[in-house]
Amino acid sequence: MYEATVSAPVNIACIKYWGKRDTKLILPTNSSLSVTLDQDHLRSTTTSRVDESFEKGDRLWLNGKEETVKEDGRLGVCIKELRNWRKIEEDKNSSLPKLSQWPLRIASYNNFPTAAGLASSASGLAALVASLAKLYELPQSPSELSLIARQGSGSACRSLFGGYVAWREGSKEDGSDSLAEQVASREDWPEMRALICVVSDLKKGTSSTSGMQRTVETSTLLKERLNIVPGRMEEISKTIKSKDFENFAKITMKDSNSFHSVCLDTSPPIFYLNDVSKSIIQVIEELNRSSGEIIAAYTFDAGPNAVIYSLEKNIGKVLGVINKFFPQAEESKDPFKTKSEDLPESFNQNVVRQGGWEKGSVKSLIHTRVGDGPRTLGKEESLLNEQGVPKTLA
Amino acid sequence: MYEATVSAPVNIACIKYWGKRDTKLILPTNSSLSVTLDQDHLRSTTTSRVDESFEKGDRLWLNGKEETVKEDGRLGVCIKELRNWRKIEEDKNSSLPKLSQWPLRIASYNNFPTAAGLASSASGLAALVASLAKLYELPQSPSELSLIARQGSGSACRSLFGGYVAWREGSKEDGSDSLAEQVASREDWPEMRALICVVSDLKKGTSSTSGMQRTVETSTLLKERLNIVPGRMEEISKTIKSKDFENFAKITMKDSNSFHSVCLDTSPPIFYLNDVSKSIIQVIEELNRSSGEIIAAYTFDAGPNAVIYSLEKNIGKVLGVINKFFPQAEESKDPFKTKSEDLPESFNQNVVRQGGWEKGSVKSLIHTRVGDGPRTLGKEESLLNEQGVPKTLA
Repeated sequence: MYEATVSAPVNIACIKYWGKRDTKLILPTNSSLSVTLDQDHLRSTTTSRVDESFEKGDRLWLNGKEETVKEDGRLGVCIKELRNWRKIEEDKNSSLPKLSQWPLRIASYNNFPTAAGLASSASGLAALVASLAKLYELPQSPSELSLIARQGSGSACRSLFGGYVAWREGSKEDGSDSLAEQVASREDWPEMRALICVVSDLKKGTSSTSGMQRTVETSTLLKERLNIVPGRMEEISKTIKSKDFENFAKITMKDSNSFHSVCLDTSPPIFYLNDVSKSIIQVIEELNRSSGEIIAAYTFDAGPNAVIYSLEKNIGKVLGVINKFFPQAEESKDPFKTKSEDLPESFNQNVVRQGGWEKGSVKSLIHTRVGDGPRTLGKEESLLNEQGVPKTLA
Repeated sequence: MYEATVSAPVNIACIKYWGKRDTKLILPTNSSLSVTLDQDHLRSTTTSRVDESFEKGDRLWLNGKEETVKEDGRLGVCIKELRNWRKIEEDKNSSLPKLSQWPLRIASYNNFPTAAGLASSASGLAALVASLAKLYELPQSPSELSLIARQGSGSACRSLFGGYVAWREGSKEDGSDSLAEQVASREDWPEMRALICVVSDLKKGTSSTSGMQRTVETSTLLKERLNIVPGRMEEISKTIKSKDFENFAKITMKDSNSFHSVCLDTSPPIFYLNDVSKSIIQVIEELNRSSGEIIAAYTFDAGPNAVIYSLEKNIGKVLGVINKFFPQAEESKDPFKTKSEDLPESFNQNVVRQGGWEKGSVKSLIHTRVGDGPRTLGKEESLLNEQGVPKTLA
């Protein structure tokens, strides 16, 4: 039986990807940089299997639900490219089994609910690409594989590495230099923690795919953002290599705000931050001010959820302010069992509206840290049963 | 008795003033353009009187409350400059009474509550300057007077004219070319209506004076906004002269969004739009889309209140969507008694969160229209009693 099961991590960008210069190849208008989060807590797992005896045609299940794989769709393109790479190896070495000719069965599963508002496409596509690469025993490096993952879902390319990861925009028309590479490993700066605040939202926002192109077409400020990002990429890489949290945080917050600015500068404007998101920003700014140093950095993707980066030694202070001002509806399981610390003495509580936020404005917290890249799992973790159908369905 | 009573209008900018290149002289980083609103509905009234027999020293009351006039404060500077201009006339013509040497008594009153969230400094300073100019019988033109009003409160310079008014940023260091002038009169385009939606806010925002300088100091996108505004000033002036509402509205909405974008791009970020403000934006965008033409334009100053511009023939449709989705706490008195019209057939109600907004998210509506410049009022409208003290206090 030819099968591989791989898990891949979620990543949260500090320098945001927003805008494509080529929508088909998914080539971005700017480079981006993210922190890979720990798969112990958040992950997508994918099992890929080929079998000569399978009925013709590929089949794929996402979270137990079968999806149609369109040949020219994003999933279809990834599968086709990796199959081609396998074929090249088979052509070079005739002793290899002709796996590229056999039907595929793929099952993918996210261990976090969609309702958490975390983009699952990055970890999901990364797990798919990594599991097929493993199944086909491809010789390509993670950066080369990232070229394929990118075409499945832009930011997926960054989930093929652990630690701190850059997606270089590249300049070639065919996209062959628009790939991900590691800036620093998890081990280089292991103290980085992330606290995800899952914020309730009463209305579905604009999808990032359509939103970013509206920005490219209509924002007059985007041009200036694109001038600024290259400098930020260089600067933040230096802060990571020198473990300079203060400047890492400054750049992260600035770039998140810059990204949401160009969303607002779009016609019609795009809003992802809601009143709770903005209040989290004001609380973190005040935490930094009253601490006399920058100990936390907020960042927001295409939705109202906050991700707060902080170092291990300071995360208790972050939990302190978040738990005080944003009481959650559900108690969160903290894998680190970190205790909330008191507010700094000079913390000005007027930054939060009088009476504070009602319970459940932040639904739940996910406390995690910087993590490693895709992991190959054992047979016992396979998502498929003997017949090549998800076990959850059997 | 030497006395003048003058009223001056509120103005709401379509091209926003945000940032000073000289904070003492109040010289802006960009030109701006506003619509003057009708004093029949919203106004500041000021009575200025001089009397040789008054006790030495000037006295001033705002809404019945006495204020200290600091010589180098904003009010003090305006009074001093106008007094100097009077002195020049007295020196030229010795037959003139020496009003410049006599103590002043000034009372000013806004007919709209501060709680309405409308900036009263523009109309208030304009009324002060216009009433002193009248009292002193100054020969200066409104544009020349706008140089003084500007130093009292930047946007006050635009309230010295009716209709459609530009504040030219100017280039001279002494500010002598940073003045207001009329682009078109009320009579040139009298059909312009404004609907002010007073939005509740649970937290006081950043003052515009400190906020705009934080933007100048920290925003990386402001530079690009400053490149864009001159083109917008030219374009919107053309739309006003040709009564092209569609393009007037497009530019107005774009510039409001651009202004709030640079606020968000400030460190720490500044937020004026809240969830209700954003929902009003989405409703107006959908009203325009579903109407098949742009019939309304939103704009927001340094606060959550929306001002919606629309033409007389379409204002009923605007009232229709606002009343449907934002039921007010208090019934508003509409001087035009306009009836709310039904939503366009293809209006997509999903742009508003499910269940709609609770009553009072918009506190009240003020329906008004384009108006004229400062008005000289009769003696019977004087705010001062015989002793030179506000009548309201007597």
